[in-house]
Amino acid sequence: MEFDIIKDWVINLFTIEDIQRAFTTTLRIIATLILAKIMISFGSQVTDRLFTNRSGKYIGDNRAQTLAGLLKSVLRYVVYFVATMSIIELFIPNAAKTILAGAGILGLAVGFGAQNLVRDIITGFFILFEDQYSVGEYVTIADVTGTVEEIGMRVTKVRETGGQLHIIPNGMISQVANYNRGSMLAVVEIGIPYEENIDRVIDLLKAMSAVFAKTWTEDLVEGPDIVGVVRFGESDVVIRITAKTKPMRQWEIERQLRKSIKEVFDQEGIQIPYPRRVLVNTAGGDTVA
Amino acid sequence: MEFDIIKDWVINLFTIEDIQRAFTTTLRIIATLILAKIMISFGSQVTDRLFTNRSGKYIGDNRAQTLAGLLKSVLRYVVYFVATMSIIELFIPNAAKTILAGAGILGLAVGFGAQNLVRDIITGFFILFEDQYSVGEYVTIADVTGTVEEIGMRVTKVRETGGQLHIIPNGMISQVANYNRGSMLAVVEIGIPYEENIDRVIDLLKAMSAVFAKTWTEDLVEGPDIVGVVRFGESDVVIRITAKTKPMRQWEIERQLRKSIKEVFDQEGIQIPYPRRVLVNTAGGDTVA
Amino acid sequence: MEFDIIKDWVINLFTIEDIQRAFTTTLRIIATLILAKIMISFGSQVTDRLFTNRSGKYIGDNRAQTLAGLLKSVLRYVVYFVATMSIIELFIPNAAKTILAGAGILGLAVGFGAQNLVRDIITGFFILFEDQYSVGEYVTIADVTGTVEEIGMRVTKVRETGGQLHIIPNGMISQVANYNRGSMLAVVEIGIPYEENIDRVIDLLKAMSAVFAKTWTEDLVEGPDIVGVVRFGESDVVIRITAKTKPMRQWEIERQLRKSIKEVFDQEGIQIPYPRRVLVNTAGGDTVA
Amino acid sequence: MEFDIIKDWVINLFTIEDIQRAFTTTLRIIATLILAKIMISFGSQVTDRLFTNRSGKYIGDNRAQTLAGLLKSVLRYVVYFVATMSIIELFIPNAAKTILAGAGILGLAVGFGAQNLVRDIITGFFILFEDQYSVGEYVTIADVTGTVEEIGMRVTKVRETGGQLHIIPNGMISQVANYNRGSMLAVVEIGIPYEENIDRVIDLLKAMSAVFAKTWTEDLVEGPDIVGVVRFGESDVVIRITAKTKPMRQWEIERQLRKSIKEVFDQEGIQIPYPRRVLVNTAGGDTVA
Amino acid sequence: MEFDIIKDWVINLFTIEDIQRAFTTTLRIIATLILAKIMISFGSQVTDRLFTNRSGKYIGDNRAQTLAGLLKSVLRYVVYFVATMSIIELFIPNAAKTILAGAGILGLAVGFGAQNLVRDIITGFFILFEDQYSVGEYVTIADVTGTVEEIGMRVTKVRETGGQLHIIPNGMISQVANYNRGSMLAVVEIGIPYEENIDRVIDLLKAMSAVFAKTWTEDLVEGPDIVGVVRFGESDVVIRITAKTKPMRQWEIERQLRKSIKEVFDQEGIQIPYPRRVLVNTAGGDTVA
Amino acid sequence: MEFDIIKDWVINLFTIEDIQRAFTTTLRIIATLILAKIMISFGSQVTDRLFTNRSGKYIGDNRAQTLAGLLKSVLRYVVYFVATMSIIELFIPNAAKTILAGAGILGLAVGFGAQNLVRDIITGFFILFEDQYSVGEYVTIADVTGTVEEIGMRVTKVRETGGQLHIIPNGMISQVANYNRGSMLAVVEIGIPYEENIDRVIDLLKAMSAVFAKTWTEDLVEGPDIVGVVRFGESDVVIRITAKTKPMRQWEIERQLRKSIKEVFDQEGIQIPYPRRVLVNTAGGDTVA
Amino acid sequence: MEFDIIKDWVINLFTIEDIQRAFTTTLRIIATLILAKIMISFGSQVTDRLFTNRSGKYIGDNRAQTLAGLLKSVLRYVVYFVATMSIIELFIPNAAKTILAGAGILGLAVGFGAQNLVRDIITGFFILFEDQYSVGEYVTIADVTGTVEEIGMRVTKVRETGGQLHIIPNGMISQVANYNRGSMLAVVEIGIPYEENIDRVIDLLKAMSAVFAKTWTEDLVEGPDIVGVVRFGESDVVIRITAKTKPMRQWEIERQLRKSIKEVFDQEGIQIPYPRRVLVNTAGGDTVA
Repeated sequence: MEFDIIKDWVINLFTIEDIQRAFTTTLRIIATLILAKIMISFGSQVTDRLFTNRSGKYIGDNRAQTLAGLLKSVLRYVVYFVATMSIIELFIPNAAKTILAGAGILGLAVGFGAQNLVRDIITGFFILFEDQYSVGEYVTIADVTGTVEEIGMRVTKVRETGGQLHIIPNGMISQVANYNRGSMLAVVEIGIPYEENIDRVIDLLKAMSAVFAKTWTEDLVEGPDIVGVVRFGESDVVIRITAKTKPMRQWEIERQLRKSIKEVFDQEGIQIPYPRRVLVNTAGGDTVA
Repeated sequence: MEFDIIKDWVINLFTIEDIQRAFTTTLRIIATLILAKIMISFGSQVTDRLFTNRSGKYIGDNRAQTLAGLLKSVLRYVVYFVATMSIIELFIPNAAKTILAGAGILGLAVGFGAQNLVRDIITGFFILFEDQYSVGEYVTIADVTGTVEEIGMRVTKVRETGGQLHIIPNGMISQVANYNRGSMLAVVEIGIPYEENIDRVIDLLKAMSAVFAKTWTEDLVEGPDIVGVVRFGESDVVIRITAKTKPMRQWEIERQLRKSIKEVFDQEGIQIPYPRRVLVNTAGGDTVA
Repeated sequence: MEFDIIKDWVINLFTIEDIQRAFTTTLRIIATLILAKIMISFGSQVTDRLFTNRSGKYIGDNRAQTLAGLLKSVLRYVVYFVATMSIIELFIPNAAKTILAGAGILGLAVGFGAQNLVRDIITGFFILFEDQYSVGEYVTIADVTGTVEEIGMRVTKVRETGGQLHIIPNGMISQVANYNRGSMLAVVEIGIPYEENIDRVIDLLKAMSAVFAKTWTEDLVEGPDIVGVVRFGESDVVIRITAKTKPMRQWEIERQLRKSIKEVFDQEGIQIPYPRRVLVNTAGGDTVA
Repeated sequence: MEFDIIKDWVINLFTIEDIQRAFTTTLRIIATLILAKIMISFGSQVTDRLFTNRSGKYIGDNRAQTLAGLLKSVLRYVVYFVATMSIIELFIPNAAKTILAGAGILGLAVGFGAQNLVRDIITGFFILFEDQYSVGEYVTIADVTGTVEEIGMRVTKVRETGGQLHIIPNGMISQVANYNRGSMLAVVEIGIPYEENIDRVIDLLKAMSAVFAKTWTEDLVEGPDIVGVVRFGESDVVIRITAKTKPMRQWEIERQLRKSIKEVFDQEGIQIPYPRRVLVNTAGGDTVA
Repeated sequence: MEFDIIKDWVINLFTIEDIQRAFTTTLRIIATLILAKIMISFGSQVTDRLFTNRSGKYIGDNRAQTLAGLLKSVLRYVVYFVATMSIIELFIPNAAKTILAGAGILGLAVGFGAQNLVRDIITGFFILFEDQYSVGEYVTIADVTGTVEEIGMRVTKVRETGGQLHIIPNGMISQVANYNRGSMLAVVEIGIPYEENIDRVIDLLKAMSAVFAKTWTEDLVEGPDIVGVVRFGESDVVIRITAKTKPMRQWEIERQLRKSIKEVFDQEGIQIPYPRRVLVNTAGGDTVA
Repeated sequence: MEFDIIKDWVINLFTIEDIQRAFTTTLRIIATLILAKIMISFGSQVTDRLFTNRSGKYIGDNRAQTLAGLLKSVLRYVVYFVATMSIIELFIPNAAKTILAGAGILGLAVGFGAQNLVRDIITGFFILFEDQYSVGEYVTIADVTGTVEEIGMRVTKVRETGGQLHIIPNGMISQVANYNRGSMLAVVEIGIPYEENIDRVIDLLKAMSAVFAKTWTEDLVEGPDIVGVVRFGESDVVIRITAKTKPMRQWEIERQLRKSIKEVFDQEGIQIPYPRRVLVNTAGGDTVA
Repeated sequence: MEFDIIKDWVINLFTIEDIQRAFTTTLRIIATLILAKIMISFGSQVTDRLFTNRSGKYIGDNRAQTLAGLLKSVLRYVVYFVATMSIIELFIPNAAKTILAGAGILGLAVGFGAQNLVRDIITGFFILFEDQYSVGEYVTIADVTGTVEEIGMRVTKVRETGGQLHIIPNGMISQVANYNRGSMLAVVEIGIPYEENIDRVIDLLKAMSAVFAKTWTEDLVEGPDIVGVVRFGESDVVIRITAKTKPMRQWEIERQLRKSIKEVFDQEGIQIPYPRRVLVNTAGGDTVA
């Protein structure tokens, strides 16, 4: 009887069910691989069509290629990962579960660590896709103001005026201020003494503006305007002059405006007032000197 | 006997149950697809009716179309995704689970990264739906003050007075301050010396206001009012004048009010006081000069 | 034998169990629908009774209706959602699970996005229910001070004195400061020279207060009180005068108090002191002049 | 044979197992309801005993009743919820699961929204239970300083001195500063000139303190003490005087102390020094005047 | 046949399996209860031994008892909770699951609310166990500086010098600064004119220190040291004097040091310099006077 | 019969299924170990190829080796962990689950604790991989400015100019400002009196720049430029001079520029203006002296 | 028949399967205990080898022992916990699950509370392992600057110069600034008048430095260097002198440098300039005196 048992299980070791299982397993592996191939090629075509159709409208050729390449890579890696998992699963039923569970322990930690990376790439994608800024533009991002030197999927490199190169993860860029999209406003504020006649000063500044507009015609979009009295200062009446300029020319125009104003004031004898103090005698008649 | 076994499993390879399964599987795929179609067309109609009914009341034609389109897209993608998953599930029972589990590992990371995107779109939806601001309005959002140039589902573009274009993700916009919804208040504060008679100054300012109100009748909603003594300054008694104006005209009115006040004060000999200091002798009789 | 098998499964295609399943499925759908109806109508009645009973005590008719309507909508949508899910579940056993799992992937992202919306509504509910502020009241919420123009379930609109309309999501409102619940305190601080006799000044201010209280009897709740010496300033002894006023009249009373004090001081020759400096000779006997 | 099948399943439609199931189901419903009743009444008794035993020691009758009532309500709603769920579960096996799963989708969002409410109530419980402050006391909570007007389970209402009513969710109250638990310290700092003799001034202040302690005996807990020289100022030597007072009387004592000091200094000819400046001649011998 | 069926199921209503189930259920309840008892008494002994062994070294008798009591309570409640759940589970298989699931919905909200409580108790445990501060010590915790009045498991009460009682949840205490663990440093900085000879001043201060050290021998740990020139001020050379004192005596020593320095300087004619200004003539020869 | 039962189960104790199970278990262990080996060696080769291919382009030999070693270690530990878990699982079916569940309790706590470690390593990886800074470079990271002394996978060590060694976890480094990537800008701002002729000063500075550029030819990249009037100060007109320099030479150039400007101004009699004040007589004719 | 049933189940009460289960259960318990022992002793050896190998390179004997002990304790407790859970699981199948589920409810709360503890220990481990600072070193951690008195696994104790003992949880220490790792830089900035000749002053300071370097040769690492003109101040030209010193000697060197500079300047008649003001006449010719 003992022998029978042994003989029996040797025969039964590979039963019909086993062979059937091996057969279906093989079929499933092939099916999985074919499915993976189809998904990748289908996804690639969808991605290409997405960017070919829209590339004319939204995004330049370079950017379209970068984005399409990125999307295809992501798709390929995801499909590979799932297919590998599915095949391992067929041989060792709990392997995938164990791997995932083991990964799950580390998952929270890695997840938190990796989320920055994911956020960088997502934000980088939108910066490129929406063309928020491009290389060479002068921007303020993440509290850094400077010229963009390089836009990558993970980081943007900005060179400050002082020469420092800032390497900023895209995920830290929430708001963008771009100084190259439309004309800029040069603003100069100048104080005149309270004793001065406001109308006369404004007339002088208007005359100066007319001359100035002709001299700097190339940089100016809209000639210098005298806005008016914007503040009563401690010792001066503050008048504002503004001018619309071509992008990045606003600072030069401001400096030239300051020089012109100073020259006009010097000619006309208008003082830019120093801080003033009034010395008052005390009530009790104690004079100072 | 070995042969029987093999013959037996070849026949059994595709049993009644297998065929039945294939049959029901096919039925389920068809059912799933039909169900998906129905849900999409039903959802579309609901969305359309939602916006047709309400479009007259809440939202302009453009905005209604934008919102309806957005909702339909979301619905369509969700239904497609679930249907695909269900069909894959029928063939490879654990595929969906594996895909989802695999996605789960990345889920936390992607979720955190993507939540910004979701928040942007949700906030953008409410900005459009509630008409919090529209293109051309002057607003303060996310610490940026300027004119709205473009409202998208993900970002709002605001041009600051200085010319910089700010690109602000909608999710960063929590509070909105809108300067174009109702009349604005021009506020001018003017210091007079402590020696001056307050009643006399207020009378002069009232007279000036009456003239001013006639000159600037087009921009003013409610003529300039003399509010009264709002502060005892270090060297001056501060009087406030306010005027209700049409939106965006408040700054011009403030500048004109300042000019008018200065002219009246010059005529009447009222000084706007410089900072004052009293020099006191020391107790021991050490005089300064 | 092959034919028998086929015949057999054709007959077995719809077995007794299948028909029984169809029968019980139908029963369950009906039961689910009835249960849903009952829950909705029962919930509506509970909601109504809740607000009818309490409406007299806690909340005005308008607010009670708004809240009851809100609760009923939430109930109705939840019941519809669960019922639909249960019915779909009966036909496609794993559909609900797949939908929920699919939703689970997006869940974290959407959840974080949507939590703001939920928080807005919950906070809005409490603002209405507890009557924290109502339209027309002057409040400080979320660092904005102004008059409430509109209270919605999601946002509160506040108009600042300057005219800007602030649109504030309710979820951003944590603390509320309400200026219309009880009498307000007008506070004026006035500096007198160190040389002045404090008792004399306080007596003069008390006399002035008595007159003032009669003139402004309508706005005042409790006549102006002379609090006393609250600070030794750099150049002055600071005395505080306070007065309880009707809500929103405190600023007018403060302005009028300032004017009255100035007039009394002018009459009595009490100077409001300018900043003072004492010039001291150096030890080495180098005098300044 | 077809007929047999039909007859068979009609008879089998309600088999013994079905009836047994109905029977046990009924038993379970009854058991569930009885269990629920027992848990509620048992929980109520435990709650009552908890507060009867301790009410004498920790908490007043009013507060004990409020807390006991709150705990009973929470218990009752939780038991009702679980019992209802269990009964629904008996009829529709997956209903509870579906409801919970459906709730799970919203759960994260609602959970985040509701957590504020839960935190408010938990903090409110501890404020009452530990008697951190009571109505009428002067406190600083959540950056608001004022008199407590109302303590609720969700919010605390505090009236600032200025009259504003602050409505503060309890969950925002982390630290409490209570001004009514023990005697307060009145602190006055007074500057004397560098030229003055410190010992003489301290003796004068000590004499003044003795008189002051007699006059204000009712408000003082510990007579005014001259602490000593606490700082060398720019132009003065700063001496500190402190006095322990009854709660809420510290400000009046400080004002009265200031007045008394000023009077003593006036009598004794001690100046409170104005800011001083020494003018020095330049090295090159350029004198100013 | 119908009768047979009925008779059959009446007999089968309570089959052998049912009785066996009842039997094993009873056994399990008893086993659970015994296990619970054993775990509690075992845990208590472990706790006691833990604190008896260590109480001599780390913690006083009072604190050891408090901590041991706390740990035993936590253990007891956890064991009771699990035992009750296990027993309910035996009767109603899904009850525990349903309760937990139901709790799970509220779990997130309650969890977030309760985590503060847990954090308070954990931090409180470490404050006691590590003896970070004890009642009567002068500490800075959570931005509040004052004397500890009470240390509880949830809150610490600190009385500020001004008299306010601060109630601080332990969880808000991250860093502790304790002023009673070792000698403190009294620090006085004194400015001398630039014209003064530094060596002479330091010699004078050294002489003063020698006398001072004898007078205040009880409070001082290390006699006053002249540290040297620590800063070139705008108008003075700043010299620092320090002294190691017994805890809480540093302020008195600082005040006495200031008085002694002032007296020495008065005797030796060293001025503590007032702020100085040099008036310079303008280039163009415009003299001021 | 009793004996039969016993005999029966002794024989049945190790049935065919048991032996089969033992057999398959052995097979699975071997399969798992082989799979693990293959994965490790395959992963190692992929890692090597990854860095061999790219090392020429992106990263130096040292860095490539460091990174490759790191990746291999991570891979090896993960594979070992999963293999061990799978083998334990075969013997004690629930062991892995129990271990993971037990770990799950601690998981949240450990996860949060460990996430910092993971984030440090991930950020460290990118710093090395992207060559954001290298040893010896002058950078600003995490609000610390200094010279990099060591870059590790977990921390970066930076020596501040003052000599302090800062040990900064890489995870705290979000933005990097690198001062060694390209030429730096030396910026000097100099104030001249309002009375001075701007054109003359600019001409003088231009002459000085020409000389300066020759002297410092080695450090300069682009000779000093006179930018122009950048600000109207309170007492001076501010002119800016800039120069592009080699990295880290900007401060020396700025110091030398300042010295040169001072020397030119001294020669030409141009004063760098002290702060100015204008003393004005009061309206009432009270003169000061 | 009833009797048969009873007899039958009495016999069946403990069937072969039961005895087999008892047998295998016993085997499993023994296996679990052996496995636990092996894991502990194996883990201990790995830990020991880890630290014996590396102790010579990275860490001193004391630290190695502390770390090894810590790791062994953690390992032992984890193994005990899992073994106990596995054994309980064998007797009461759902106990472990119930305990874990029960713990799960509290888990979130406890987890958040305990994560601080875990973070403290992990950070403490790295502080010891990387030798970031040791007892007696002068450091800045968590905004506290002082001397390290004790480094524990949970807290670091730092004594500030003022004498306060700061107890800082290690988890709050992110960046460490260590003042004892390499030479420090003494920095003195001194202002000279604009009228002074810069070259002459620098020559004088260089001469002084040469003498100074000889006097303080023991404390200095690199003799005092005259850096140059680092700033144009309002009233002075600021020159910087630096010197590399031994750790902790930088403050003494700075004080001595200040004294030496003052003495040289006094000898050479170079004034350290007081703040200067230029008084200008008003345009209208109103002179001050």
